[in-house]
Amino acid sequence: ELKKLPTLPQFLVADIEISQSCIPKPIDQVAREVGLLPDEVELYGQTKAKVHLSALKRLKNQPDGKYVVVTGITPTPLGEGKSTTTVGLVQALGAHLHQNVFACVRQPSQGPTFGIKGGAAGGGYCQITPMEEFNLHLTGDIHAITAANNLVAAAVDARIFHELTQTDQALYNRLVPSVSGVRKFSDIQIRRLQKLGINKTDPMALTKEEVNLFVRLDIDPGTITWQRVLDTNDRFLRKITIGQSPTEKGFSRMAQFDITVSSEIMAVLALSDGLDDMKKRLGRMVVASSKRGEPVTTDDLGVTGALAVLMRDAVKPNLMQTLEGTPVFVHAGPFANIAHGNSSVLADKIALKLVGKEGFVVTEAGFGADIGMEKFFNIKCRYSGLRPHVVVLVATVRALKMHGGGPAVTAGVPLPKEYMEENLQLLARGCSNLNKQIQNARMFGVPVVVAVNAFKTDTKAELALVVQMAKEAGAFDAVECTHWAEGGKGAVALAQAVQRASQAPSNFRFLYNVELPVIDKIRLIAQQIYGASDIELLPEAQEKVTLYTKQGFGNLPICMAKTHLSLSHDPEQKGAPAGFILPIRDIRASVGAGFLYPLVGTMSTMPGLPTRPCFYDIDLDPVSGEVNGLF
Amino acid sequence: ELKKLPTLPQFLVADIEISQSCIPKPIDQVAREVGLLPDEVELYGQTKAKVHLSALKRLKNQPDGKYVVVTGITPTPLGEGKSTTTVGLVQALGAHLHQNVFACVRQPSQGPTFGIKGGAAGGGYCQITPMEEFNLHLTGDIHAITAANNLVAAAVDARIFHELTQTDQALYNRLVPSVSGVRKFSDIQIRRLQKLGINKTDPMALTKEEVNLFVRLDIDPGTITWQRVLDTNDRFLRKITIGQSPTEKGFSRMAQFDITVSSEIMAVLALSDGLDDMKKRLGRMVVASSKRGEPVTTDDLGVTGALAVLMRDAVKPNLMQTLEGTPVFVHAGPFANIAHGNSSVLADKIALKLVGKEGFVVTEAGFGADIGMEKFFNIKCRYSGLRPHVVVLVATVRALKMHGGGPAVTAGVPLPKEYMEENLQLLARGCSNLNKQIQNARMFGVPVVVAVNAFKTDTKAELALVVQMAKEAGAFDAVECTHWAEGGKGAVALAQAVQRASQAPSNFRFLYNVELPVIDKIRLIAQQIYGASDIELLPEAQEKVTLYTKQGFGNLPICMAKTHLSLSHDPEQKGAPAGFILPIRDIRASVGAGFLYPLVGTMSTMPGLPTRPCFYDIDLDPVSGEVNGLF
Repeated sequence: ELKKLPTLPQFLVADIEISQSCIPKPIDQVAREVGLLPDEVELYGQTKAKVHLSALKRLKNQPDGKYVVVTGITPTPLGEGKSTTTVGLVQALGAHLHQNVFACVRQPSQGPTFGIKGGAAGGGYCQITPMEEFNLHLTGDIHAITAANNLVAAAVDARIFHELTQTDQALYNRLVPSVSGVRKFSDIQIRRLQKLGINKTDPMALTKEEVNLFVRLDIDPGTITWQRVLDTNDRFLRKITIGQSPTEKGFSRMAQFDITVSSEIMAVLALSDGLDDMKKRLGRMVVASSKRGEPVTTDDLGVTGALAVLMRDAVKPNLMQTLEGTPVFVHAGPFANIAHGNSSVLADKIALKLVGKEGFVVTEAGFGADIGMEKFFNIKCRYSGLRPHVVVLVATVRALKMHGGGPAVTAGVPLPKEYMEENLQLLARGCSNLNKQIQNARMFGVPVVVAVNAFKTDTKAELALVVQMAKEAGAFDAVECTHWAEGGKGAVALAQAVQRASQAPSNFRFLYNVELPVIDKIRLIAQQIYGASDIELLPEAQEKVTLYTKQGFGNLPICMAKTHLSLSHDPEQKGAPAGFILPIRDIRASVGAGFLYPLVGTMSTMPGLPTRPCFYDIDLDPVSGEVNGLF
Repeated sequence: ELKKLPTLPQFLVADIEISQSCIPKPIDQVAREVGLLPDEVELYGQTKAKVHLSALKRLKNQPDGKYVVVTGITPTPLGEGKSTTTVGLVQALGAHLHQNVFACVRQPSQGPTFGIKGGAAGGGYCQITPMEEFNLHLTGDIHAITAANNLVAAAVDARIFHELTQTDQALYNRLVPSVSGVRKFSDIQIRRLQKLGINKTDPMALTKEEVNLFVRLDIDPGTITWQRVLDTNDRFLRKITIGQSPTEKGFSRMAQFDITVSSEIMAVLALSDGLDDMKKRLGRMVVASSKRGEPVTTDDLGVTGALAVLMRDAVKPNLMQTLEGTPVFVHAGPFANIAHGNSSVLADKIALKLVGKEGFVVTEAGFGADIGMEKFFNIKCRYSGLRPHVVVLVATVRALKMHGGGPAVTAGVPLPKEYMEENLQLLARGCSNLNKQIQNARMFGVPVVVAVNAFKTDTKAELALVVQMAKEAGAFDAVECTHWAEGGKGAVALAQAVQRASQAPSNFRFLYNVELPVIDKIRLIAQQIYGASDIELLPEAQEKVTLYTKQGFGNLPICMAKTHLSLSHDPEQKGAPAGFILPIRDIRASVGAGFLYPLVGTMSTMPGLPTRPCFYDIDLDPVSGEVNGLF
């Protein structure tokens, strides 16, 4: 319900003014409306709530609703409105077509909110509200990940230090101390003994050799893959030397901080199926190799239980709403550059039960369809067992012109005139990208609806051309949308197309079998989805294939770490490049989350602050407590 | 209300088992009971709530209740039960003597919870519950501080970097960009111009010299006092080199991470009087000096508004309850080593209004009375304007025997027999410390009640001796307490003594006038409170006295950073040492929080993980979701 809306032309109204002009329903009312019981909801103030996993158990015999994934063509650096379209679509389905519907979206990192990009609540009249809650701490899930991630990092270095400075016996006396004359292994130590093949439970019964095996993780510092994280854009932490205080006795080493959303724990949160599954994944995360080449896990460090405790609340999806009062789950936000970039399995599952058989769950997959959607299908759907009914592919005239050879689009720089005036030739040429992304979606056997996200500078002829070319490329339907300016009303035609598509035959299939060799899986994605003629493994990548296959991780799905600005590895290659060789620089493993991630080029995992960060405009009114200047 | 309590001897029952055996009242019921309106309360689940500052406004004409501060004698490293006594006292006053009462305590750092010390919710039958909520994320206040603190740190280094790599004009073009052809200063930039004495608001009107002054903070990297923080015990971050990625072009420097609770922002939170006051304090925090020797503030960095936005929820006190259903505010937890170590002014103020004229607010001051209480009076009460009625001084037979010359008490090592058997001689000798701390409290004109926190190994004669010697030393009263084992019932006599003392004449006065020279203020504390014969300023401290006096910070109160394990600077000196020279190694400024902190010796601001951290025992039951192994 909207109170007096700003009357300025809509594109001159800041997102936060629109958001603050709308009075959200009390969130306990939203919870009641979607069929949650009071016991299943933990309120966090008036506008946010956490939903207990017990809801999933209660509803387990309820049939699932229709599962719709929103993705996009290869975007410009400005973004083409995936989040806005996700919100617009659920507003249309819910507030205008009166269907049960849920949006499931990612929690944004706070780094870009204060850095360059701003928030991620959607925009215009399609926003998750209150956007300042959505964009800032929310209910603390990302903070919990920071705490959990950094506890592991501190444990790794402290353990190496203690092993370097103590004898086996001293370590053993401390790890299994005598308390009132009794020595006892903790549960997690029993698990380590079992892993080592030592079937003893009496601490006094271990041989010297067994004590040695037990107390020494023997981490090879050169193999540590676990990094510290912060949810802050802090470029000076990209490469650091740690351990330079005299108290660390000279055991310094090079390390780095990444942005929190790139933590494996974020990927674990997004892919977990429940508390038990999350705890297991948290325990099998690999932090390094031992000097003998064996993987060292978080469970070996003794930290699994503490991680689960730190993540106990984070595992519950967060309920919010759109500007039009449609329910939204905001849950998990894995970094799409190196993880799978999709919101949580648990939020989707609970939402699918809550909307019921005829309802719709609209979930968003990060970046372009070649990355976000591919990972949604091959990783997220593989782990969740959920089967999607419809792909919504967001396209804009602006991005398609760029793909047709238009000048570079750069954030903070005025758009060149090609983007402000009609240019059907550039547009038609650029539809090669749209065509390829439609084929990519169809490869998985799911019908595609193209949402043409209209800007005020787009002409009728341009919009009609995109619709026509999308249909010719095999889209189930293609629809012009004006939800940014009009709210859900502007996406009613899109919603109707999605309704029709959800009745169409869907024949979902994965692109590859996980049992294939690592190289074959990578090649399949590169050739089928990106259009590469082949892949080339650089020596480091080749070594990792051997290592991970030997360590037993060869049958994990593949999570490509590739630029989203091109179907290829080169962000300059627009349209639908073909015939290129995709270089694989290195491969990393997120064993707890459950994937290998080949690095195609260099990925930055820590953004920086520009000369004039967003924070210059952000302010708090000390009287009203209102936030200004977020966008 | 307690459900079936464990029947084992109480000292064998883990704190978390007692905590989990008690079903807390729904927190909205507690809120109603204390007289808060529904609009003033934001629920965070069933057991925690944030209280709006509007409550303070609504109750501004209500008289304040009695203000009681709990402190202690110089403790052993095991702690003497200050938190437990705080909880026991409010349980006695509330659940047994039916007075309106509130406890106000600090939020503990998560670092020690997973490191060595464990949690801080009290113990035995005197706990804040649920202790796992109290000890872990609570409502995210510490996480908000981490985020805010590190945004400042990232802004400092990014700003230095951008100034080093850009011309004045390039910086100006980016700091005041042309948006649709219009250049505009943001509010915070106008404030910077005013500070520089430039009374212009048109960006095109600045001279070259003015542009230069405006764009260059000209931070001297050697003077940076702002450190990054994490709420994790990570010893390898005590000294690090940052900026070693090629993207930072060689501008690396030495830096460090501290534990989050030592952030100045935590001290700001604890001392703020409201949203407006907090914002002002956040803006005047000094992060470094410019090359011209002028203080560079967070406001100069443009980040004040963003900090206020990040701290918008943290400023609201958190409502919880004790095992006996007594209301508790948990709010702020400034690091007692380098800050003032007291919970928030705002929580105390709201609580004093809520309990009303005849009610009691029991607030805890960290560490021994020479530090926590001295800072409570001279810093916290000075800023809050509140006047305390009673000091409760916690003493134990164990600590007093140590002060009398007993062997060292060490965490994790069984207690020597002197502490397990009656020894009146050691005890009597050790009462020198009790005597001195009683004098210290009386110096501020407030009556002192000594709470003798009884352990099961204490004999009747020992307990009686402490009571007798406390009274002889001038305590208003001295009472034996057994609240740890018995809950509030065990502190009823203490509560009655506090009631009587609150009627006694109190003639509160500060120890010093802030207008005195910095050195005189330090000397007064050293001589009057610690028993030193004089102070000695090392050269760095001497330089800082000159610098801060010149920069206009000389009239701030003094926050001594001194060991809590002795009245002197040497933790080995027990009892009541006298005649020593107190060495002042250096002096730092927390200008936003509002104090100078002289460093007496070296303070560790980042704890480490031991060989076997607490986390080995911490676990989550994946079925019930219950936390085990916290203590």
